[in-house]
Amino acid sequence: MTDMKVRVRAQSENATKTVINARNFRFVIDEPAELGGTNDGPNPVEYVLGAFAGCLNVMAHLIAKEMDFELRGVKIDVSGILNPARLFGQSFEERAGFKEISVMIKADTDADEATLEKWMQAIEDRCPVSDNLQHPTPVKIAVKATVPQL
Amino acid sequence: MTDMKVRVRAQSENATKTVINARNFRFVIDEPAELGGTNDGPNPVEYVLGAFAGCLNVMAHLIAKEMDFELRGVKIDVSGILNPARLFGQSFEERAGFKEISVMIKADTDADEATLEKWMQAIEDRCPVSDNLQHPTPVKIAVKATVPQL
Repeated sequence: MTDMKVRVRAQSENATKTVINARNFRFVIDEPAELGGTNDGPNPVEYVLGAFAGCLNVMAHLIAKEMDFELRGVKIDVSGILNPARLFGQSFEERAGFKEISVMIKADTDADEATLEKWMQAIEDRCPVSDNLQHPTPVKIAVKATVPQL
Repeated sequence: MTDMKVRVRAQSENATKTVINARNFRFVIDEPAELGGTNDGPNPVEYVLGAFAGCLNVMAHLIAKEMDFELRGVKIDVSGILNPARLFGQSFEERAGFKEISVMIKADTDADEATLEKWMQAIEDRCPVSDNLQHPTPVKIAVKATVPQL
């Protein structure tokens, strides 16, 4: 298979609220009031955990089909621990992002434990979001001022 | 500052569509038809890139304020390259997720280039999503069948 390019475009509405365009879809990101925001949507780290759950659901069904067992549905609970000290510039001792992420997948299925163990390992190995969270990814950030510099 | 726990709960609606609950918010994740989905929302990797843009916006404004320059707004373009071969189980040569991510931040500001360079470095260092993409994060996944095992 060939490489795919995935792209989104974002625009700030205020200091914490961002509108994202992805193909013909649009979604809103904001911070809750207690983190200084206008609370018009989930915050960035909630979207990361949600994206992880969404990716696990796709993989869960795809791999159950390959393994030929019936999966009637999944409920997924995802949580992560982070310390906002670095974000707010108050301390640089800890990392900025999640220090750990925990996932519980509740599967509506009659498959046995050994099958589910094998299934889970394949899900984890082949899920793109799982990979990007667990392994380093090169990121390039460029900045340009839209007002011409003198 | 003390650790925060961030949590979302997800439920599959079908093999590709997931409904996410984060506090009082709800959002829908799906895959486009060409990836076998029902196309009712952005897909997981689009949410990851969008979350990254949303996080960069928050950091951009927070740090501009600390550095005492006026930031009237930002537009952020985020793209990533991935090969879906591993996801579909067709080849295990490449990683499952994004191999690289590129960001362009267009800042509406009169700040000079040296200021923007320093600003960008602080954004990148203190943005939680940037950290979780660029550095490894421990992930624990547990599975439970909701139907009692015999």
